[in-house]
Amino acid sequence: MPKARKQFGSVDDIEHAFYDAIGRADLDALMELWADDEEIVCIHPDGTRLIGFAAIRASWADIFATGGVHIHPVQLHASQNMMSAVHNLIEEVSSPEGVQRDVHIVATNVYVKTPAGWRIVVHHASAAPGKHDVQKVSTTILH
Amino acid sequence: MPKARKQFGSVDDIEHAFYDAIGRADLDALMELWADDEEIVCIHPDGTRLIGFAAIRASWADIFATGGVHIHPVQLHASQNMMSAVHNLIEEVSSPEGVQRDVHIVATNVYVKTPAGWRIVVHHASAAPGKHDVQKVSTTILH
Repeated sequence: MPKARKQFGSVDDIEHAFYDAIGRADLDALMELWADDEEIVCIHPDGTRLIGFAAIRASWADIFATGGVHIHPVQLHASQNMMSAVHNLIEEVSSPEGVQRDVHIVATNVYVKTPAGWRIVVHHASAAPGKHDVQKVSTTILH
Repeated sequence: MPKARKQFGSVDDIEHAFYDAIGRADLDALMELWADDEEIVCIHPDGTRLIGFAAIRASWADIFATGGVHIHPVQLHASQNMMSAVHNLIEEVSSPEGVQRDVHIVATNVYVKTPAGWRIVVHHASAAPGKHDVQKVSTTILH
């Protein structure tokens, strides 16, 4: 019996589901989170830009061929209105040797509210040199 | 006499003003385009993540110390609703030697509609190796 597509009541819920699906290498669960829109965009840390469902799905299938990626999102900065939300965060990527120290990943995730609940329209991840600076932004008040 | 802050009636207008101000190294014009929000985010291609007006302003002041940067945005993919818009594009950066061929810049620009018109909340630029692939996305239908 086909499962009903999951509803996400909050932006935090869908963001949690996104990183959870990546950690479990669950391609179907991951792709359910994207908006039904030809203009969805996914940019991986190597700079590859994918447009549209098919291209994005194929890229994650490649990544998951070697298993899930364990990502712990930290240092969230968020802007939100009734119909959309932007999350900018640091992705702490765990490797078998522990958290990587030589690079860190910055990500912008954009969500829109659809009749089916919150969905992803853009995931833009990029690599930045060095360990991320915990002090620099930790005093910013989130709202 | 202080000038009234400019209104931008469309997302394309404010995006044009953004790259125009960067090309002219006009810091005041550039900073007028950002939303009045502590959570505005600017990520430069070197990976530096700036949060808030003061940090973003200081970073562009540093960049403009050596003059404007001439950027031609191409390959736009856009999603928009009544209150927000996301533009993803390739920034063709001109140098005195012409357009750079060894890297290209991918940018996500997020705009929100405020009582004062459209404003920027996130500019996330990242470097990608090689020349951008014109064929790969040119057949996508924009809407």
